Amino acid sequence: MSYNLLKGKKGIIFGALDEKSLAWKTAIRCHEEGAEIILTNAPVAMRLGEINKLAEAINAIVIPCDVTSNDDMLNLITKSKEHFGGGMDFILHSVGMSLNMRKGKSYTEIDYGFNQKTLDISATSLHRLLATAMKEDAINEWGSVVALTYIAAQRVFPDYSEMADAKALLESITRSFGYHYALKKHVRVNTVSQSPTRTTAGSGVKGFDGFINYAEKMSPLGNATADDCANYIVTLFSDLTKYVTMQNLFHDGGFSFTGVTQSVIEQMEK
Amino acid sequence: MSYNLLKGKKGIIFGALDEKSLAWKTAIRCHEEGAEIILTNAPVAMRLGEINKLAEAINAIVIPCDVTSNDDMLNLITKSKEHFGGGMDFILHSVGMSLNMRKGKSYTEIDYGFNQKTLDISATSLHRLLATAMKEDAINEWGSVVALTYIAAQRVFPDYSEMADAKALLESITRSFGYHYALKKHVRVNTVSQSPTRTTAGSGVKGFDGFINYAEKMSPLGNATADDCANYIVTLFSDLTKYVTMQNLFHDGGFSFTGVTQSVIEQMEK
Amino acid sequence: MSYNLLKGKKGIIFGALDEKSLAWKTAIRCHEEGAEIILTNAPVAMRLGEINKLAEAINAIVIPCDVTSNDDMLNLITKSKEHFGGGMDFILHSVGMSLNMRKGKSYTEIDYGFNQKTLDISATSLHRLLATAMKEDAINEWGSVVALTYIAAQRVFPDYSEMADAKALLESITRSFGYHYALKKHVRVNTVSQSPTRTTAGSGVKGFDGFINYAEKMSPLGNATADDCANYIVTLFSDLTKYVTMQNLFHDGGFSFTGVTQSVIEQMEK
Amino acid sequence: MSYNLLKGKKGIIFGALDEKSLAWKTAIRCHEEGAEIILTNAPVAMRLGEINKLAEAINAIVIPCDVTSNDDMLNLITKSKEHFGGGMDFILHSVGMSLNMRKGKSYTEIDYGFNQKTLDISATSLHRLLATAMKEDAINEWGSVVALTYIAAQRVFPDYSEMADAKALLESITRSFGYHYALKKHVRVNTVSQSPTRTTAGSGVKGFDGFINYAEKMSPLGNATADDCANYIVTLFSDLTKYVTMQNLFHDGGFSFTGVTQSVIEQMEK
Repeated sequence: MSYNLLKGKKGIIFGALDEKSLAWKTAIRCHEEGAEIILTNAPVAMRLGEINKLAEAINAIVIPCDVTSNDDMLNLITKSKEHFGGGMDFILHSVGMSLNMRKGKSYTEIDYGFNQKTLDISATSLHRLLATAMKEDAINEWGSVVALTYIAAQRVFPDYSEMADAKALLESITRSFGYHYALKKHVRVNTVSQSPTRTTAGSGVKGFDGFINYAEKMSPLGNATADDCANYIVTLFSDLTKYVTMQNLFHDGGFSFTGVTQSVIEQMEK
Repeated sequence: MSYNLLKGKKGIIFGALDEKSLAWKTAIRCHEEGAEIILTNAPVAMRLGEINKLAEAINAIVIPCDVTSNDDMLNLITKSKEHFGGGMDFILHSVGMSLNMRKGKSYTEIDYGFNQKTLDISATSLHRLLATAMKEDAINEWGSVVALTYIAAQRVFPDYSEMADAKALLESITRSFGYHYALKKHVRVNTVSQSPTRTTAGSGVKGFDGFINYAEKMSPLGNATADDCANYIVTLFSDLTKYVTMQNLFHDGGFSFTGVTQSVIEQMEK
Repeated sequence: MSYNLLKGKKGIIFGALDEKSLAWKTAIRCHEEGAEIILTNAPVAMRLGEINKLAEAINAIVIPCDVTSNDDMLNLITKSKEHFGGGMDFILHSVGMSLNMRKGKSYTEIDYGFNQKTLDISATSLHRLLATAMKEDAINEWGSVVALTYIAAQRVFPDYSEMADAKALLESITRSFGYHYALKKHVRVNTVSQSPTRTTAGSGVKGFDGFINYAEKMSPLGNATADDCANYIVTLFSDLTKYVTMQNLFHDGGFSFTGVTQSVIEQMEK
Repeated sequence: MSYNLLKGKKGIIFGALDEKSLAWKTAIRCHEEGAEIILTNAPVAMRLGEINKLAEAINAIVIPCDVTSNDDMLNLITKSKEHFGGGMDFILHSVGMSLNMRKGKSYTEIDYGFNQKTLDISATSLHRLLATAMKEDAINEWGSVVALTYIAAQRVFPDYSEMADAKALLESITRSFGYHYALKKHVRVNTVSQSPTRTTAGSGVKGFDGFINYAEKMSPLGNATADDCANYIVTLFSDLTKYVTMQNLFHDGGFSFTGVTQSVIEQMEK
């Protein structure tokens, strides 16, 4: 399927670990829609994943980038401009890691050194990306930046732990920087708040199975799939959504505005 | 218990049907805190309920009022001013009825004549009350008006049906009229969004038991009690909250910002 | 420009008064994207406007419909099914009228008979439309319904008066009915909250010029144009946004999440 | 004025720099309402300010605390328990500093080392406080914690810069930790989002005068005063608000739900 929605556009995709990744599927869909892509990920994630397989399939180059490093970010932006022979039109930020969760620390007993790292990787990285892009004038007029987030930024999901706080920070940076980039170059910045998805990252969260079933029962359309998420992001990168900015957009089958469903009530009565 | 928070204040309480009513408990607490009260309710509800028992207990007069009648509303406001010898300081709007639910009509098949009545009783009545009070200059400077609402105005609770739409309208009127009354006389208008409560009205909702149990499990502090709701409303009528206006205030044990709880997840795994 | 995003799709567009209308531009864009269209409007609006000119241009038929009439709505849905030879894929609800504003009544002194009409035309009409469509099984699986709204549903804009309350009711109906239609047939229902736009309807609002200038200065990207609004609605009708439902989507150049801009601050200092 | 709302209660107040501080006024009002207080602030702020004058006036002790230090926090909590002879009932977190603003760095060019400090001081400090209190079991059943925040966490105010992101993080921590502390000990945690106030801290923000005038014109009741903010916090520390938790409560004269005012529109037309 292709509508040529992104014909002639160029962009960077962060975070394509393996074929279950939202970023992976987004990269493929952007390519199908006519875009030229650069892939990037953390050096360590690149070793674990299969990013080169994807690069080959969509004829993309790969530039490693540790998102907590100013130098790496500058290198990514500079090299991308060289490769594209100018600015880019879109960027997908699909980056997040909770060190305290990984270390098995509960939310009320987190280590603050780990927490600082979690915030830096998962949220401040978006600021670093946008600031570097702005300084290097790397995004074209009316370009579009999307970052992936989760509804835990608004409401508590206990097992999501410190990542909720990181996502709240990410969404605030989206608004704050979105304001400045709109004024400067009509660049728009939004977050997409996706249903829980069985990615390699998502599956690592404790209690993920019980949770994804709950979300399925609480979403009138069911949980949004990764393929549909990729489609949605394509619309946000296209020229058809030019005045949407500084928004948090739920792509979740209606979960966000559902208080309870008949299906959950029935389960409660068991 | 009394702090004399409402010493010397005068107010009208709508909707005290029987001793389980939020309005009933609020009337008692306002009286304990030193306020002079006028009670009102629809003529039909007065026959069904026990409002005179309450009136005696707190030394209040009762003025019947069909909230869909401009004449009744004017009569209530005029008589209240006469009784109080001047303006009043607070009003509680605890009024709501869904005719389609009462007639057993499902949300997707409502009768629009009934629906118009539901909106008039449950939402437009607040506008009529405030407009009449403003025209008659019946609320004192920095007076406080509270209307009771429910989170179904923000998120779907299927069994709450058309009442959800009525509450959304009520909350909008709160903001819209709150703006004008603040400018005109520093009167503040807010809604309190209370946990589901086992009142005579609440219990009539289909599936109420399953629902109240769900809400209990989804509220980190548990469902807020009617007694605590009365306490909270007292603070909003007091001089300690003078700059809070046009707000929807959740009094719900944390339900509104909880996405899921461990307790609900466990139930889902059964 | 055409991406064939709506190739083979069929839909109804309400409210195309004249070429400045959001609905007019949306109809043209949907046609360009490959859709087959039926136009509808109130009989009185059809006499005032130029809907037949549009119908000719996009090869559409026109079916009049007073949205407050159950019979008219049923006639529209039935005739549309006949014309399309089956169900439809999308509907645009662009309908609103404030009788009290038209009569020059200020918000604090509205007539409740007019108000009831305003709510019926501007909000309940969406319920009537969806209920009729559901009963007649007139929307195909994964169909998409969009209603136009305005941010006054969330925050007070004094000159927008009773229409704010109508839009709040409209947005609640969107969520409430969206839940049921998602469960029944995966139909999604959303509102688009558009920047103030110089349509014939918009221009009628008192103080519109001062207001649209303010909105322009308060939107980091500037006010969203009607052409861009049409583009955005096309994405919501397409298959690329299948899991977006029960949402209120701001298409406003960032206005909704901007607290103040440098440009407004400077104006305040004059 | 005293209602004895906090009779017998004990609490810690952070951030009373000088007599213009919100924390200073809150400390005085809590004392008037019958509470026993411990004051705390950063060692450097204590040298600049006049906290000892306040301590004398309300018969409080002062315990210095650098909120970025785990050891200082533990010392504060431990010493407070010793001084009170047991747990406490309330805590006010009024702490915030933007290092990048202080260094004159614009939002799009912040230093990430400074930013990490800003987040640690202004937001993570609340987590550290709550985690330490929970570990030491220092807050009594149904205790109440309030942190001060600002609406820039929801909407962009360009001059508020990186502090907006810090406040968004603070509000997320409020929800996340509020969930856990409610389950564990019925402790409630909320933020109060106050009007801009002419404190020594507030006045340091660039363009503060233009901004406070704008807020005054955009608030139907006018900007909320510091005295009224102290009153409001007293109600949140009292037993009358026991089921309010995980909320962000606007104390702002209606600013948060006002889209525009007549007064601002008139200024726009100049």
